[in-house]
Amino acid sequence: MSDIDQLRNRVDEITLEMIRMLKKRTELAKELGRIKETIGRGVTDEAREENLRRKVLSVSDSLGLDGAISLRFLNFLLNESVKIQSADRPTHLSIFRKAKSLEENGKKIIHMEVGEPDFMPPKSVGQALGQAYQKGLVGYGQASGMVQFRQALANHNSERFGIKLSQNNILVSPGGRFSVFAAISTLLNYGDEIIVIEPAWPAYKECALYSGVKVRTVITTLEEKWEPSTDQIRGMINTNTKMIVLNYPNNPTGKILPRDIQDDIMKIAEENDLYVLSDEIYSDYAYSDWKSVLSYNYEKSVVVQSFSKSHAMTGFRIGYTMASEDIVGKMAGISALCLTSVAEPIQYSAMKALEADTSDSAKMVRRRLDVLVKRAQDMDLEFVKPDGAMYLYVKIDKEGFDGIQFADSLLEKGLAIAPGEGFGNYKSFMRISACQNENILKQGMDILSNGLSMLQ
Amino acid sequence: MSDIDQLRNRVDEITLEMIRMLKKRTELAKELGRIKETIGRGVTDEAREENLRRKVLSVSDSLGLDGAISLRFLNFLLNESVKIQSADRPTHLSIFRKAKSLEENGKKIIHMEVGEPDFMPPKSVGQALGQAYQKGLVGYGQASGMVQFRQALANHNSERFGIKLSQNNILVSPGGRFSVFAAISTLLNYGDEIIVIEPAWPAYKECALYSGVKVRTVITTLEEKWEPSTDQIRGMINTNTKMIVLNYPNNPTGKILPRDIQDDIMKIAEENDLYVLSDEIYSDYAYSDWKSVLSYNYEKSVVVQSFSKSHAMTGFRIGYTMASEDIVGKMAGISALCLTSVAEPIQYSAMKALEADTSDSAKMVRRRLDVLVKRAQDMDLEFVKPDGAMYLYVKIDKEGFDGIQFADSLLEKGLAIAPGEGFGNYKSFMRISACQNENILKQGMDILSNGLSMLQ
Repeated sequence: MSDIDQLRNRVDEITLEMIRMLKKRTELAKELGRIKETIGRGVTDEAREENLRRKVLSVSDSLGLDGAISLRFLNFLLNESVKIQSADRPTHLSIFRKAKSLEENGKKIIHMEVGEPDFMPPKSVGQALGQAYQKGLVGYGQASGMVQFRQALANHNSERFGIKLSQNNILVSPGGRFSVFAAISTLLNYGDEIIVIEPAWPAYKECALYSGVKVRTVITTLEEKWEPSTDQIRGMINTNTKMIVLNYPNNPTGKILPRDIQDDIMKIAEENDLYVLSDEIYSDYAYSDWKSVLSYNYEKSVVVQSFSKSHAMTGFRIGYTMASEDIVGKMAGISALCLTSVAEPIQYSAMKALEADTSDSAKMVRRRLDVLVKRAQDMDLEFVKPDGAMYLYVKIDKEGFDGIQFADSLLEKGLAIAPGEGFGNYKSFMRISACQNENILKQGMDILSNGLSMLQ
Repeated sequence: MSDIDQLRNRVDEITLEMIRMLKKRTELAKELGRIKETIGRGVTDEAREENLRRKVLSVSDSLGLDGAISLRFLNFLLNESVKIQSADRPTHLSIFRKAKSLEENGKKIIHMEVGEPDFMPPKSVGQALGQAYQKGLVGYGQASGMVQFRQALANHNSERFGIKLSQNNILVSPGGRFSVFAAISTLLNYGDEIIVIEPAWPAYKECALYSGVKVRTVITTLEEKWEPSTDQIRGMINTNTKMIVLNYPNNPTGKILPRDIQDDIMKIAEENDLYVLSDEIYSDYAYSDWKSVLSYNYEKSVVVQSFSKSHAMTGFRIGYTMASEDIVGKMAGISALCLTSVAEPIQYSAMKALEADTSDSAKMVRRRLDVLVKRAQDMDLEFVKPDGAMYLYVKIDKEGFDGIQFADSLLEKGLAIAPGEGFGNYKSFMRISACQNENILKQGMDILSNGLSMLQ
């Protein structure tokens, strides 16, 4: 037998021996799972995992094995025992789709479940669509977006935030959701960890799960005014933590963080070399003091913007990311892979939208939120008055309340609102969207009030 | 120490022992790599891997370990030793981008490197863009596409191929590339294998690498008229093989498979329960007998279509997939995750494009291909006369010819054509695109002829 065949056989033998150990490990892990289930323990697992991670790093260090390889290996083993939970909980979108199919069958539904403005995009947007064809903007383009559009976005945001962005800091995307997907899937690796502050838009968690990225959740409460504990954030950072997600003004709570808390989080991120993925798509709807993550000039910040809410262009699917050239370059890779480029007529119309004055929209949504706030107060619902965005996140304080069932029962009464559970472990909450005119909002709140009175 | 702590410690011990074995395995694999490099071996690795796979399955079977888990584990180990090759070879798109940046600096370039029609989309498409705004088609929609559009696509294709499709068999996507990405990333798992027949559009391989899917390549040659050996295909199928990709009329060769070969491949797929991903975006440009994979009524077929080539709508980024409801449902999941939905104005304009008569485009491209064929014959270039599509894939039979260098030297002379290497291991080939009028094509071929004469 040649040297090469001998070597191969030894590699194969070791592989098979590792399979035998995998079997042993799987059995023990199962038994552990059974015992934990019986005695109801399990909360200390994250501390234990972190401990194991340190041990693994120290062993591979003493062996001269690349630490990154052994951490990937460990994460592989950990993920095999903990089956990744699927993101099957009902969201605002599943209620939206249910409502749509009821409407197709002739039912009249008031839509207060999705964040979709009821007003039209600026007129110039409609004109721009036709012009794009006339101008021959019908071809392939750069994966990162049309130069002229990126230039316009860089100028717009440089002026707005008093910073200096160039077109190379901009990545155009088919919607804020794709920006989030691109950031998580290209900047993070399998087994990395991400911190998400809940309640939160479910896309962050979904994208992380898809990429094999582990989500650590910071739970905030209505009682604590939806403010995260920075100690808690600090405590959950380990060697695998690579990113924290911020979303202020927040969906669903409307919260804007007090400045000192936001400053602290940015400091924690910097100290731990974390990416800060800041979803700022509600920034045009900020009704109290709000500071963009861009203003911190932090190298690893990734700021997501969209025309969906600010310009009522949800169905145009157009957004963008602002980040360092390096980050934009990485994220452009996944755009090139999935999309080649973003539709040119859409980019052109968004470029024209940028010139429109949309300040009236913000004022209008604020008035609508005021209507919701007043009615919710009258109905004795618990909530924190929103600082921004376009939602009211209310607690229904009834024993055994189930938001999903309640949303279904309201649908039958002609009102669609979103169960709070779509945004985290908030069974007793509902999200009410202010994307209708005041009269319709009042009708919707009447249906809600009626539905509440029928609970027991 | 409690039972639970004892169990935990044993799990941790096994984990650390596995790390030690990983270290041993990594060292041996490195040594193996060094020896193989010295003696220039390595081709028998795939047979060996398959052998190891069988051993692993048999060991885990005898241990009562889930085979899927141990295969995932094995693939993890194999991927750690073989660094995944990045898809960094220059493609038609990198030449396109180089050409674009030369143009920005005032250089005049004839574009014969990309498959981008020089004619405009049907007029109705331009009108439809403006109408979409008037009609209020500016909102969120279903992840799988607008019902009305999917209905129109189902009817159109049912009629064209004499089959029965419903809207539930259609998934609208932002371009054929996204369809390919969605199919590969949702239907296949990490470590699965896919068969690609080269030369091929690089996106199949790129999407597979991104998803950790292993690509097995069937090499075809000009000498064999770009026809794959079905024996070779049969021979490379193993327990991990899950999909075969077809693309006829082919990019870059223009080949349409002889009916018996295509029938055989479909039979092989059926016998081995493989998905058939059939990229049929050049089907409007078929100049000899062509049969859609749809016509086989094979449950696991996934047919990709696009408006880019048929309706000159490259920059609209709009395509679709036709498959079983089950497959469409799975693929819609990744659309919902990345995109929410596809831009409504774009969907609406593509729906209108469907009504336009585009038969003149096919005739025109055919005439242009004839021009290229005649000139290439005059220049004594070797090629197979294309049966369809919009390209000529020619061999430059010169000692030491390097297509990438040659493409660069032509760029300086004002002509962009694509190096054959972008489509596989075809260093001596170039792809010439017929997407210009006949005069410009002739000018381009003059530059090519001139460039060739300067090669020694």
